[in-house]
Amino acid sequence: MTSQLFSPDVQQTLDLIGIFVFALSGGLLAVRKNMDIFGICVLAEATALGGGVMRDLVIGATPVVAFTNLGYFVTPLLAALVVFFLHPEVERINRAVQTLDAFGLGLFCVTGTAKAHDYGLGAVSSMALGMLTAAGGGVIRDVLAHEMPALLRWDREIYAVPALVGSAMVVVLIGAGQLTTASGTASALTAFVLRMLALKYGWRAPRAWHRNGSRTSEE
Amino acid sequence: MTSQLFSPDVQQTLDLIGIFVFALSGGLLAVRKNMDIFGICVLAEATALGGGVMRDLVIGATPVVAFTNLGYFVTPLLAALVVFFLHPEVERINRAVQTLDAFGLGLFCVTGTAKAHDYGLGAVSSMALGMLTAAGGGVIRDVLAHEMPALLRWDREIYAVPALVGSAMVVVLIGAGQLTTASGTASALTAFVLRMLALKYGWRAPRAWHRNGSRTSEE
Amino acid sequence: MTSQLFSPDVQQTLDLIGIFVFALSGGLLAVRKNMDIFGICVLAEATALGGGVMRDLVIGATPVVAFTNLGYFVTPLLAALVVFFLHPEVERINRAVQTLDAFGLGLFCVTGTAKAHDYGLGAVSSMALGMLTAAGGGVIRDVLAHEMPALLRWDREIYAVPALVGSAMVVVLIGAGQLTTASGTASALTAFVLRMLALKYGWRAPRAWHRNGSRTSEE
Repeated sequence: MTSQLFSPDVQQTLDLIGIFVFALSGGLLAVRKNMDIFGICVLAEATALGGGVMRDLVIGATPVVAFTNLGYFVTPLLAALVVFFLHPEVERINRAVQTLDAFGLGLFCVTGTAKAHDYGLGAVSSMALGMLTAAGGGVIRDVLAHEMPALLRWDREIYAVPALVGSAMVVVLIGAGQLTTASGTASALTAFVLRMLALKYGWRAPRAWHRNGSRTSEE
Repeated sequence: MTSQLFSPDVQQTLDLIGIFVFALSGGLLAVRKNMDIFGICVLAEATALGGGVMRDLVIGATPVVAFTNLGYFVTPLLAALVVFFLHPEVERINRAVQTLDAFGLGLFCVTGTAKAHDYGLGAVSSMALGMLTAAGGGVIRDVLAHEMPALLRWDREIYAVPALVGSAMVVVLIGAGQLTTASGTASALTAFVLRMLALKYGWRAPRAWHRNGSRTSEE
Repeated sequence: MTSQLFSPDVQQTLDLIGIFVFALSGGLLAVRKNMDIFGICVLAEATALGGGVMRDLVIGATPVVAFTNLGYFVTPLLAALVVFFLHPEVERINRAVQTLDAFGLGLFCVTGTAKAHDYGLGAVSSMALGMLTAAGGGVIRDVLAHEMPALLRWDREIYAVPALVGSAMVVVLIGAGQLTTASGTASALTAFVLRMLALKYGWRAPRAWHRNGSRTSEE
């Protein structure tokens, strides 16, 4: 098992932090969409666990871990309660939430890639599943909330690309037999830093060439 | 196998009734969205079987039962035909359809919880999967029909909460070694009655505190 | 294994053609929705592989082939690049794209049905999964792009029905012990020709009777 990058206790703690903050983003969208406490819980769960559930389904790791690890399942409910009672305060610390979200992005792209590789998938697929683990929950959140997925909107700072870079580092490290706690942490930090820089400098990905016959047109 | 609450014939009959009426709700939405007969069949199938398919995928019960039990698969097509030819009449008996829908809700939350527990899931996850079995198909229906999921709208009578109560009763009964045909039926009836009461008295779940700075604001 | 209709090399070549053109349709929608290169890649992948992924999940064929066959995974990225740089040209040859799309529809309904049958599913379920393989990716594409699924719109030429006919032929052929390369190809061609005729003559499926009290009303 190469995916055991950290000691079980450390891994569980890091996972729960990432799950908690992903769940916050789901709960906040539910409040913005005027949902009730049940909707807040559903979006919190779907955002926090959806990416990992899809990864586990694709690689055949059933029952999926999101439903067998009680802590994974209960943590989003705690985040939903926090949002229910304190959502103006949570909105106010949006910068901190985005920073923690980037932390989750870095963590889950690394552990998702390593888990997919453990289940026998190749380098490219493992990278894709690492990104799916990190970014898939947000897509499910937006589909359930009847919104255009933020991940696919050109006018948002890049989110999946930092995850892809982190996943690619893990794949290269596995190939070189060099995936350790230190190098895995470095991969996660790289994704984290890229995401924070994207937020700071407004990095976006290019849209198709020749839209309306001219590459320079910007609507 | 604790999930064998009823004799196989009784179970199959109950399941088919629940599937039929869930399929009606899918078909009716398809008509309202002006879909053709094919769309009516797709929404009928998705609404009736979607929750069970998601449960089976999560617990690893593949091939999923919705595709291996011919009766489960064909019943929604019969409901689709009924809607295709008689939808004004079906709309007119809406109260009866809602009552049968509450029956399906009670049945599927109980059998879904028991099946998840049979596959080794814990109490909390089994509850969640029972609710997913009962309420998940309606979410897929709404996503496919490009609508905000009714389950997540604050202005609808509670739907998932009665299912959660039924699921919780099953989990407690399993823990106490007391899940029998009688106690399982009582759990399903509890969910059914709660849903009917919610419809009668307009029960809704609370939305987040401090929306717009005041808990009492109601838009 | 009845699903080995063609020699592995021929099968892989045909599959990659079908995947490429399905991916084009995903990429083109992404451009129309003003997505960036990342969104183009995601919609290309989802459209091309989504149907097969759902089929494999339902029948329990994990890890799903879309993530274990490198060619399947990389081909949509090539299609995404073509769309990114040349989308006006691709839009201009829309007739050719629709023809190739019908080719993919015919191919995937046949191979999807045969694979489902190989995994022990019955005739009706195998037909449904053949259709899901061929048409499911387009539904995922539309859901991700926040559009009403084209497959469910009454004002589009029939798409799934030709696939159902091809799937039904495969099921009958399997039942008669007559599924060969020749008869499988004939099934795929039948679906292809039906889809092309539907496009040429504007074939649509009927909507529910008695809409607004009159069968003849057409809005």
